[in-house]
Amino acid sequence: MNAMIPTELTIQEKASLTTGRDFWSTSGHASAGLPSVILTDGPHGLRLQTGATDHLGLADSVPATCFPPAVTLGSSFDVSLLERVGAAIGAEARAQGVGVVLGPGVNIKRSPLCGRNFEYLSEDPLVSGVLGSALVDGLQSRDVGASVKHFAANNQEADRMRVSADVDPRPLREIYLRAFERVVRNASPWTVMCSYNRINGVSAAENRWLLTDVLREDWGFDGIVVSDWGAVTDRVRSLKAGLDLEMPGNPGNSIQRISDAIASGELEESVLDESVVRLAEFAKRARPAEGPADLEANHALAREAAGKGIVLLKNEGGLLPVPAGTDIAVIGEFARTPRYQGAGSSQVNPTRVENFLDELKAAPGVGAVEFAPGYSLAVDAAPEAELFAEAAAAAGRADTVIFLLGLPSAVESEGFDRADLQLPAVQLALLDEVRAANPKVAVALVGGGVVEMPFADEVPAVLAAWLGGQAGGGALADVVTGAVNPSGRLAETIPLRLEDTPAALDFPGEHGHVRYGEGIFVGYRWHDARKAAVRYPFGHGLSYTDFEYTDLDVQRYDDGLRATVTLRNTGSVAGREIVQLYVGLPGSGVARPPRSLAAFACVELAAGESTEVELLVDRSELAYWDTRVDGWTVEPGTYEVSAAASSRDVRLNADIELAGDVVQVAINAETTLGELLADPIGGAIMAQHAGDALSGITGGSGDDEASSMMATMLGSLPIGRLVNFPGSPMTHEGLAQLIGAVQGARAAAAAGVPAKQ
Amino acid sequence: MNAMIPTELTIQEKASLTTGRDFWSTSGHASAGLPSVILTDGPHGLRLQTGATDHLGLADSVPATCFPPAVTLGSSFDVSLLERVGAAIGAEARAQGVGVVLGPGVNIKRSPLCGRNFEYLSEDPLVSGVLGSALVDGLQSRDVGASVKHFAANNQEADRMRVSADVDPRPLREIYLRAFERVVRNASPWTVMCSYNRINGVSAAENRWLLTDVLREDWGFDGIVVSDWGAVTDRVRSLKAGLDLEMPGNPGNSIQRISDAIASGELEESVLDESVVRLAEFAKRARPAEGPADLEANHALAREAAGKGIVLLKNEGGLLPVPAGTDIAVIGEFARTPRYQGAGSSQVNPTRVENFLDELKAAPGVGAVEFAPGYSLAVDAAPEAELFAEAAAAAGRADTVIFLLGLPSAVESEGFDRADLQLPAVQLALLDEVRAANPKVAVALVGGGVVEMPFADEVPAVLAAWLGGQAGGGALADVVTGAVNPSGRLAETIPLRLEDTPAALDFPGEHGHVRYGEGIFVGYRWHDARKAAVRYPFGHGLSYTDFEYTDLDVQRYDDGLRATVTLRNTGSVAGREIVQLYVGLPGSGVARPPRSLAAFACVELAAGESTEVELLVDRSELAYWDTRVDGWTVEPGTYEVSAAASSRDVRLNADIELAGDVVQVAINAETTLGELLADPIGGAIMAQHAGDALSGITGGSGDDEASSMMATMLGSLPIGRLVNFPGSPMTHEGLAQLIGAVQGARAAAAAGVPAKQ
Repeated sequence: MNAMIPTELTIQEKASLTTGRDFWSTSGHASAGLPSVILTDGPHGLRLQTGATDHLGLADSVPATCFPPAVTLGSSFDVSLLERVGAAIGAEARAQGVGVVLGPGVNIKRSPLCGRNFEYLSEDPLVSGVLGSALVDGLQSRDVGASVKHFAANNQEADRMRVSADVDPRPLREIYLRAFERVVRNASPWTVMCSYNRINGVSAAENRWLLTDVLREDWGFDGIVVSDWGAVTDRVRSLKAGLDLEMPGNPGNSIQRISDAIASGELEESVLDESVVRLAEFAKRARPAEGPADLEANHALAREAAGKGIVLLKNEGGLLPVPAGTDIAVIGEFARTPRYQGAGSSQVNPTRVENFLDELKAAPGVGAVEFAPGYSLAVDAAPEAELFAEAAAAAGRADTVIFLLGLPSAVESEGFDRADLQLPAVQLALLDEVRAANPKVAVALVGGGVVEMPFADEVPAVLAAWLGGQAGGGALADVVTGAVNPSGRLAETIPLRLEDTPAALDFPGEHGHVRYGEGIFVGYRWHDARKAAVRYPFGHGLSYTDFEYTDLDVQRYDDGLRATVTLRNTGSVAGREIVQLYVGLPGSGVARPPRSLAAFACVELAAGESTEVELLVDRSELAYWDTRVDGWTVEPGTYEVSAAASSRDVRLNADIELAGDVVQVAINAETTLGELLADPIGGAIMAQHAGDALSGITGGSGDDEASSMMATMLGSLPIGRLVNFPGSPMTHEGLAQLIGAVQGARAAAAAGVPAKQ
Repeated sequence: MNAMIPTELTIQEKASLTTGRDFWSTSGHASAGLPSVILTDGPHGLRLQTGATDHLGLADSVPATCFPPAVTLGSSFDVSLLERVGAAIGAEARAQGVGVVLGPGVNIKRSPLCGRNFEYLSEDPLVSGVLGSALVDGLQSRDVGASVKHFAANNQEADRMRVSADVDPRPLREIYLRAFERVVRNASPWTVMCSYNRINGVSAAENRWLLTDVLREDWGFDGIVVSDWGAVTDRVRSLKAGLDLEMPGNPGNSIQRISDAIASGELEESVLDESVVRLAEFAKRARPAEGPADLEANHALAREAAGKGIVLLKNEGGLLPVPAGTDIAVIGEFARTPRYQGAGSSQVNPTRVENFLDELKAAPGVGAVEFAPGYSLAVDAAPEAELFAEAAAAAGRADTVIFLLGLPSAVESEGFDRADLQLPAVQLALLDEVRAANPKVAVALVGGGVVEMPFADEVPAVLAAWLGGQAGGGALADVVTGAVNPSGRLAETIPLRLEDTPAALDFPGEHGHVRYGEGIFVGYRWHDARKAAVRYPFGHGLSYTDFEYTDLDVQRYDDGLRATVTLRNTGSVAGREIVQLYVGLPGSGVARPPRSLAAFACVELAAGESTEVELLVDRSELAYWDTRVDGWTVEPGTYEVSAAASSRDVRLNADIELAGDVVQVAINAETTLGELLADPIGGAIMAQHAGDALSGITGGSGDDEASSMMATMLGSLPIGRLVNFPGSPMTHEGLAQLIGAVQGARAAAAAGVPAKQ
């Protein structure tokens, strides 16, 4: 059938398209050829509810593969892995007739306390944007739409429905919007989900600057904007802002509200039509159910993903992997009762769940495995003498101890933030007793967020196992035995203490506002700029092999940079290395961290093998958001490019000179003498106009130190203020002539050289 | 003669009163009985220029007593001392016929890099406000007006004429405006000087909110606002904002501009009249010249002040004071070429200048004194082998070494900021050689700002001698010999490194804006809240005797608190102690440092003597600026009151419960379920209206952990959003009824209990 042009529907019919039919599906319109589309929670697996509906992860849902949450996927730094995971989730969605999976979440981990950090990829916008794009690409390769969320500056759960994230332009553009921009530009997600919070006072759901000016006009987004569930307060204000689809559906109220607003003139019908056209395009993208998905293959993929996300933080004396025949004591309730995902709307009903203990026992070549739970998972569990004694005894009998520590499930959830970065005291106390019985302890950390690690210097080996998804137990066993060589990297800094973290003093804000006072200095950018000690730096992760970096070469390439570096696996086993390229600009005229990640590559090499790794840096990674022009500016200067294995493990440096963008400062009465004299055109004209008067002001007289101090002081004087000083050689007329002359000369020069756009 | 009513003057005559006659004096109007008043630079002495005029401290001025600059006066924590200094400056001003001395400067030391920090008192608003008030009281006791400056948020020199200090309401009110508020309320300064910079985008000179709403209406200021020299861009806009007097005078332009604006209707004549009335009151306050001042007595006072400002930071093994008969090596050019004030408009032409070397030699009981300059004061001076050898040899021969280290004059000035906190490398290198020759080294630091002190752990004794004014050399000799027992305290934290300081990453801003991202966490508030190591904490300072604190008692008193503590001098010499009272509120609902200074007392005790010290805490010191009500709120709760010898040397604690202010949160659709249920009235009504529906939502069911998590999540849901969920028990009508019922019940309750003003 030939579809109707949807804008020819009645106002009520069009309005009905802009609000869901129910909790999880769109209204659609059969005679216009627009099917109803099912949207379900994600993003690390499908949460298709079966009976009661909620947005809190509480009611039952159809079994689906529970892949590792974003915290673990992010630690893989692996684009192709995330594409495959996205495609697998997409296949499960298609099999269930689901049109959109609500993910990925690309919000920045501003504070380690954010309750939802386990759903987010990184503290770094490049990692979040590149890996977020990979998940979208994978999902949409199965003709299932993604919903990039939560747009934007949604970095805490406290007061999440109302709080205003008060963010300055640079951090907003360079940190908090940056990953969204990359995903939108590179992966064209079908949908973007607006967040609950306000941004600089304006609710995301009613923020036309955000949803239309930035998202569509600047970035070229051509999909639909869907509300987070319950984010809409007023359907007409949100429609005007560019919010196409209200979820859950509220047809009873919203259709009437829209109709009334058009009747009264409050809303132009054309605004409704713009959304309707987009919603029609969206509906037409949805494909019928197709399946079934290969759940066995997806379980194997979940295990691979969990393995690639595990980060080996420390491995003194090569304690790991355990050699064949090693007798192992496995300590910790988490070994048989795994925590593998966080709580809330992302909670998947897994097709099956592995635990570490059984998987380790089943691994080939392992010696005797003795288990002691050691502690209970109840919140505020107290030390139990019997459990402690049993654990210490088991440790004493073993060659090596694998000790699972972690956060209880009740502290990591959507809906509220963590109160601190502490592990349960009972676990730390047990660890002390176990270490006393056998110092050969490898700690495996379980949890979706970082914790303070007072034991890090006391044990020889530490693994961050994160939340591993349904196959996380097997993945950890693979790494412990060496079946998998660990290769994950920290996508967020592990601080020494909560008090060291950038947002420690203003998170989560008060009275409806949270000031992002640290500006662009989020995560490693903060710690590195302050030269402050951390527990483990961003990008850190060890391997069972070693990699050598040589021959860094950096060239200008396609408006950006192309770097090549030779990487050699100098150890005895195959391994995967995450080569990180950082860029800094010493002496920059604006605030910058010493280095920020500009590219990364994931390289697998057999023992002894070497290869040339290519890293491309987009021009936009060199630019900063310039408030003078409301745009991106590349500063001229000598950039320092570093090939590194973490933000603090720089292996090679190279300098490259960039001409950058010429930004002309406006010349007016507020222009300072210093700015005018520094300007090639302005300086020459100033010398002509006021040469004699100036020479007395700007130095050249007897005392060098005094005249240099005077020049510095006068350099900050706006030229317009010269008029107001008694006896000044500058008059109002003279000032106007001077400004006119500079502007004229600039215009003449610009006729030859086009100004920056 | 009976003065004319000034508002009966012509427009031109009135306009002429609002702009100076020349660089340093007001226009006055003889027939209206309004004398011309001379204003001169201060604030640590008079700078009455004699010939050429400038605002940069360059041209000659009349000799006057150079008291220690504010950095040193602030370190005395001594109200009566500052009153006496103010009175002495006032007497010198009267003797010269000066009507207003431009000071004190009560800006907060936001960053140790601010070039003008030596002109400011403290990083703490209480110290700045109390001591600033004392200077004003002293000055005005001689019928010479003060000019409290630079109003406001002028905390850097970089781009000082234009930069916008972007400050949130709490730090603005609690930190940056607070000292001004105290001085205005307590000391009624004749004038307030507006600063050059912008505040949240609006130039101080044109900021009606600042100059009128806050200064006059909130605080009751009844004096005149004078511009910083050259701060006015447009005379009419600044007049409308409440800026009464433009300086330097610009009669040629400004009178015409004002007349034209009244003629065109741009300016109401009544606005001009308001300023004219205030300017007339001001002019009538000025008294004729009277003198002469007692310059000998003032020199002695300058020496006393410098002595009370010297801070003994460290004194291992009682190296200081040097016992009678000690042979001393004095090392460092500063010992004979003193730096005793900073550069810029505050630079006084001293009546005479003492140097440390001569004063030490002249002190009774000192043994042999040998001097070696060791380094040159030239910027970037290189180590000179001969000077080094001479210094090391002198040190080797002496019993004790007094080593003067410090910043060269070229790095501390109005007009530009410091680039780092480093001492000259040559001095540090010399110190190493001298220490090797003789470890008994007492370092005396010279300079107006704090520096990094890599040597602090390597030498047994350290004194901060600051900038001592013209008698600083003698004061230092007094402390070294024990003629004066040191008693100064740090009015600003000495950090370990620049990177540790709160504003390190956003000072001095870029592109015309500086974000005060650290919020209220300035100085010790930052370091204490982050539990970060510092070199020496705020309030720190040792003595040659010891003080014991006992019997802290805290009671409610006159809307605030009254604390008493018994102080005993347990050592063998008389001494002065600065008893500090800090207040904190553990578990506060808003961001707060662990403790902030709420009162301090300066107590002199003979050896063995004891006394009861009383400290009164104003209610306003317990309050925070509450953005919900745009006013000061005292939170209910148990406050922790600490008697302390520094922010980190708490001697005694006491708790006191305060009922505080009841702030009713507005009840509307954006009120969260959690807020409503927590409200005594709202909670009861909510239970009536929606009891059954809520019981399912807020817990009580089987799984305690799950229902507690759910309650936490739903607690943040605005009640208005309940309407939008499919199947919600809440309708638009029900919501309106609920809100109306709560508002009604509140109004009824309020009829009995008056609401907070």
